[in-house]
Amino acid sequence: MERFRLVFSGSGGQGVITASIILAEAAVLYENMNAVQSQVYGPAARGGAARSDVLISEKTIDFPKVTHPNVLVCLTQTAYNMYNPIIRPGSLLITDSRYVKTESKVDARQRELPLYATVMEKIGNPIVFNICVLGALIALTDVVKPQSVVSVLSSRVPENFLDMNRYALDLGLEIGRGAKQIKKD
Amino acid sequence: MERFRLVFSGSGGQGVITASIILAEAAVLYENMNAVQSQVYGPAARGGAARSDVLISEKTIDFPKVTHPNVLVCLTQTAYNMYNPIIRPGSLLITDSRYVKTESKVDARQRELPLYATVMEKIGNPIVFNICVLGALIALTDVVKPQSVVSVLSSRVPENFLDMNRYALDLGLEIGRGAKQIKKD
Repeated sequence: MERFRLVFSGSGGQGVITASIILAEAAVLYENMNAVQSQVYGPAARGGAARSDVLISEKTIDFPKVTHPNVLVCLTQTAYNMYNPIIRPGSLLITDSRYVKTESKVDARQRELPLYATVMEKIGNPIVFNICVLGALIALTDVVKPQSVVSVLSSRVPENFLDMNRYALDLGLEIGRGAKQIKKD
Repeated sequence: MERFRLVFSGSGGQGVITASIILAEAAVLYENMNAVQSQVYGPAARGGAARSDVLISEKTIDFPKVTHPNVLVCLTQTAYNMYNPIIRPGSLLITDSRYVKTESKVDARQRELPLYATVMEKIGNPIVFNICVLGALIALTDVVKPQSVVSVLSSRVPENFLDMNRYALDLGLEIGRGAKQIKKD
């Protein structure tokens, strides 16, 4: 597998860091890979922006920061505007269609997905939006198996919230698989 | 302020990563500093070990990993054995007396604190052990003000758990202040 370099960006409160940690743990605990997760808090964080970096590899990873991601997730317009210039050309860029208006000039495989809208329509609770995004992300990249994420969720999420989290993950997986099949490029 | 380089280590489930993120957010959102928090998951993570790095500085921080901490927290014997060799000589080393038996040969200002025992005696719930550790850490280092941590807790912790978290923080602050005053070296 090519080294997986993810920048997961949005605003504070969207659960970007939590989703990143869940992904890193899934890779390490259930798929025998190595992972690094980090976040740099600077002036942007004071403005409400959140950015989390995740590196996943079969080999040892030394440097924990992603300079040029091959997968970029942007959950706000600010995050999209700030980070789309750093993506590796031709890489995967996932945005939420409720929050981000994309531009065609970006050299990336852009997937605008109705993740937030679907979570609100089917579940009605924005707290699991990040888990839905994670579902779409793993469906589009195959970086870890859905079952590995479910295993991490089972050990981290209080029992009475587990069904909601699994449902959000499934919705994301479904949307991600749809976007993968339709848009071959 | 000298750059604050923390390695926060223990086992999975002790809340090491959560406490680190709370500390980093307190520094950035309420004290106008910069911070980086990261964790490297490798074979040790599969054995249940947790290590989180936090850098806090008034200046911009580029490299997110701590090579030689000037503050080391160890909440298990395994973590203590693994990480005490990397501490900067003469730096602060905080351990929990329930979990770690320290050795005098380590060149550090060692503080063995009864944090876990106090949480269990006064609160009876191990879930806030990490917050108590954080209280002791900030009392001993003055890296951020207690009020900044309280502000982060207020925005992150569900309301019905907030009092318990604040109490755990206060217990840690008290123990940390005691250890600071008694052992001058």
